[in-house]
Amino acid sequence: MQIDVQITRARIEPWPPPPAGQAVSGAVVEFTGVVRGTENGAPIAALEYEAYDSMALSEMRRLLQELSAQFPCHAVRVIHRVGIVPAGEAAICVRVEAAHRQEAFGLMTTFLDALKRDVPIWKRRALKEPPSAS
Amino acid sequence: MQIDVQITRARIEPWPPPPAGQAVSGAVVEFTGVVRGTENGAPIAALEYEAYDSMALSEMRRLLQELSAQFPCHAVRVIHRVGIVPAGEAAICVRVEAAHRQEAFGLMTTFLDALKRDVPIWKRRALKEPPSAS
Repeated sequence: MQIDVQITRARIEPWPPPPAGQAVSGAVVEFTGVVRGTENGAPIAALEYEAYDSMALSEMRRLLQELSAQFPCHAVRVIHRVGIVPAGEAAICVRVEAAHRQEAFGLMTTFLDALKRDVPIWKRRALKEPPSAS
Repeated sequence: MQIDVQITRARIEPWPPPPAGQAVSGAVVEFTGVVRGTENGAPIAALEYEAYDSMALSEMRRLLQELSAQFPCHAVRVIHRVGIVPAGEAAICVRVEAAHRQEAFGLMTTFLDALKRDVPIWKRRALKEPPSAS
């Protein structure tokens, strides 16, 4: 399985559709996680995501590699944004390509659950100014 | 829930991302069903889809309306192509927007299962020429 994981501080741009190529993948599933304008009923302007980049990347790769045994897919691509993410913008985008939709949805939903639980990326309500490092 | 279902004889073009708007939807899930270049191990050039358009449209709408009680989502958009669909091209695209990913994936996967079972759209291996109506 082809695995491409990235962490970015920039706005996530939509991916172009996968190239038609040899038409081996019958199912393409894409998930975009967007920062909502409210949290627990209160309006928020942004969330701030923080990651241990290298650990988060290697943990995502390890997870996906492991899940590919249970859900054989052709390709998966993940981009997670960190830093301040304004409401209405994407914090994460994941695309899975597989022969059949069952594997694609299986990998996708299991990965997203595990991501929240196991990968060192945290979020909190953003302050108006990015917090100082001191 | 906002429901938009279409049947087309033209190539399906990728949708632009949903407008940021009021940032109520935290999850956007998109599924593209692509015609694969093989079926049961044999290479194929295309599939042909046939539908009772008006029945298929109203049945898709009814199904989605019904599923929105179990999986409350904000919007769902479906486009299904009929006629000859060459390998590598999309036969269907579905986008679900919801506050949370669980409802979005629930609606999506339950809809796709029901679509195959209940909606009058059929597929078969395409002949080189579209079959004559006589």
